[in-house]
Amino acid sequence: MNAVSLPPETTITDVPAYMQGLGRAARAASREVAEAESGRKNAALMAIADVIVSQRHSLAEANARDIEAGRARGLDAAMLDRLTLNDARIDAMAEGCRQVASLPDPVGVITDLAFRPSGIQVGRMRVPLGVIGIIYESRPNVTIDAAALCLKSGNATILRGGSEALHSNRALAEIIQAGLGAAGLPRSAVQIVDTTDRAAVGELLRMQEYVDVIVPRGGKGLIERVSRESRVPVIKHLDGVCHVYIDKRADADKAVAIAVNAKTQRYGTCNTMETLLIHSERAAEILPRLRAAYDKCSVELRGCERTLAILPGIHTATEADWYEEYLAPVLAIRVVDSLVAAMDHINTYGSQHTDSIVTEDWTTARRFLRAVDSSSVMINASTRFADGFEYGLGAEIGISTDKLHARGPVGLEGLTTQKFVVLGDGHVRGG
Amino acid sequence: MNAVSLPPETTITDVPAYMQGLGRAARAASREVAEAESGRKNAALMAIADVIVSQRHSLAEANARDIEAGRARGLDAAMLDRLTLNDARIDAMAEGCRQVASLPDPVGVITDLAFRPSGIQVGRMRVPLGVIGIIYESRPNVTIDAAALCLKSGNATILRGGSEALHSNRALAEIIQAGLGAAGLPRSAVQIVDTTDRAAVGELLRMQEYVDVIVPRGGKGLIERVSRESRVPVIKHLDGVCHVYIDKRADADKAVAIAVNAKTQRYGTCNTMETLLIHSERAAEILPRLRAAYDKCSVELRGCERTLAILPGIHTATEADWYEEYLAPVLAIRVVDSLVAAMDHINTYGSQHTDSIVTEDWTTARRFLRAVDSSSVMINASTRFADGFEYGLGAEIGISTDKLHARGPVGLEGLTTQKFVVLGDGHVRGG
Repeated sequence: MNAVSLPPETTITDVPAYMQGLGRAARAASREVAEAESGRKNAALMAIADVIVSQRHSLAEANARDIEAGRARGLDAAMLDRLTLNDARIDAMAEGCRQVASLPDPVGVITDLAFRPSGIQVGRMRVPLGVIGIIYESRPNVTIDAAALCLKSGNATILRGGSEALHSNRALAEIIQAGLGAAGLPRSAVQIVDTTDRAAVGELLRMQEYVDVIVPRGGKGLIERVSRESRVPVIKHLDGVCHVYIDKRADADKAVAIAVNAKTQRYGTCNTMETLLIHSERAAEILPRLRAAYDKCSVELRGCERTLAILPGIHTATEADWYEEYLAPVLAIRVVDSLVAAMDHINTYGSQHTDSIVTEDWTTARRFLRAVDSSSVMINASTRFADGFEYGLGAEIGISTDKLHARGPVGLEGLTTQKFVVLGDGHVRGG
Repeated sequence: MNAVSLPPETTITDVPAYMQGLGRAARAASREVAEAESGRKNAALMAIADVIVSQRHSLAEANARDIEAGRARGLDAAMLDRLTLNDARIDAMAEGCRQVASLPDPVGVITDLAFRPSGIQVGRMRVPLGVIGIIYESRPNVTIDAAALCLKSGNATILRGGSEALHSNRALAEIIQAGLGAAGLPRSAVQIVDTTDRAAVGELLRMQEYVDVIVPRGGKGLIERVSRESRVPVIKHLDGVCHVYIDKRADADKAVAIAVNAKTQRYGTCNTMETLLIHSERAAEILPRLRAAYDKCSVELRGCERTLAILPGIHTATEADWYEEYLAPVLAIRVVDSLVAAMDHINTYGSQHTDSIVTEDWTTARRFLRAVDSSSVMINASTRFADGFEYGLGAEIGISTDKLHARGPVGLEGLTTQKFVVLGDGHVRGG
């Protein structure tokens, strides 16, 4: 494999024309990728993994330019860390490509093929969406993750990363295109938006004829802007205000284990518990045990009045706390008098992401499972399980909080759609 | 069952407040309907059918007021016909409710439930979308069709019919609500927008907290307005520019039968063929046979130059013809030199609705089936089969030309979504 040479930096003056060009090329490539056999797509993914490894030095060089510019611009330590491609992260990107290659190909799978009374056979074939636009912030490894998932699911991709990662993303795009070329797939199956001009995003969101779906990945501000402005359908993730409800008939040990894991296993993830609900008959017994566990992790507790009566000295939760996605070692706690009160709280304040009940009562569990309207509903399990790998999807492009199309963790299947296929032998419709 | 009395006509002055009230009531009702057992929903559907029949005279009276007003406003004969509820149509509405009652209930079906390495069980449960807004034009029987499908799929519904059908729709809403009440379901599970103020539509399209999806049914102008303005996701049907491609290796008799059926079985439907593509090696043999058949039905033909050379005297097709959805006895015909040329034409001019190939060649059929990116792709069958009843969905709320969520005929399943369910025994996440 030859060394990947970075193209010279260019200034794009006519952003709409540039974006239309990307769109046309993506649409044309999408037809080829949609028809590509699994073996060819997998070969491309394995080639990309190889080039990532063989080009790790030029990749690190490009990344260093971003880091240097980021320091000069005064990015904080957390942002610089997310921007950094160290050896471990470069290896992880290559490994990610190999893992996606090993997943089953969803494209072309025909289900429910059956004869109808008229004599035709009708079924559904899973097919790519077409062209997927990904808009994301500083982490450059998203470039590889997103490109790999979109390619495996038979889609062409237009990637718009953060301006602070442009050099890294250009280097990664070259690597991806080298891998595509090596496998005989069109290089324009994966393109980056090679300008930091913000008008490019607006164009991408309006190219309905060239882009089939937009997936924004990043902070709430980005996602809200994309949702508001896009004329193209969006698969998006908004808030993760997740609840654990400890029921009257909860097993206390399970309740403590789940409530501690759901809050403390990781703080910054969308499937972390933000509000704990507990039945009034169990609060006096279980809350002190939880406080002891949370104190060890320095989790700040904010409770309703009845919680404060049991855990004196903690902060008082305000109405705003029930809506809050802390993404931090902070937990709101509310005592409720019934399953219905718990479900009312979840319906009122939750974000329909992931909610779990701890109970040994069959009827209560069954009701909660059916009635709670969230993308993941759990019984006696930590909300932290809500993720594509844990669910067996193999990988995920994100977790959708929308109801239509994809709901919950979105894997390869969420990047496809189904068309009807009809097989006949000259059949015509009567009547 | 008591006689349904029509409420007095009211004037709604504060349209936003009125719509918010409908939304709140719908959201509350949606939770009850989502949890309702199939038996209760079916009982409501059967009760609605009974009330339709027993109240046919008051229904006909309300409809007569609309017809009278429509005549006074100068509606044309076709519109007056669509507005009319005669005995046959009233019986058909009742029968439609009974048929929907007999369909399997999609709600609560759990699929793919399997153990994961962590020990949790993960599956997907089919659940209602929540609140569905239907915006439609003059045919009042849509009120019953849409309400029945939404109810069976566990959703609450807000119906906004055409202003010219308001009296009929008010009478139908009373009937539906009587049936809901008789089965112990909340009357606000189905509500109509009881004002002709056009601002009400704008409100409905912006009530994201109360409405989960909008289904517009009507002309292109209505659907484009709804798509443009809606902040709520839309399941929509735009154009049906459907093609039949007669391949080099087509069976001539099948080709003629399919091409005639696809064009002439009904002219005004979205799955009617609008453009016929034919391989150059078969044009001279098959086109004259087709012309003879189309002449019998007075179908106007518009051909490309090569078609005109074989069928002298027909109209010349312009570029605009290839994009046209005639919905009339008019057909565009183009001679192409290959499968690829046919697929290029379909990709360029088609609307991704329904496209069919006539061929006896295995490899050609297989390629067409995979590569054509339309909601229904057919081999040796008439495009007229693209419909929920023919596909075995039992009924349909429309045919979606979107790619996301529901594609093609939308039955009960398209009015639902899936959530993940996770079952554990105190499982927490490690690592």
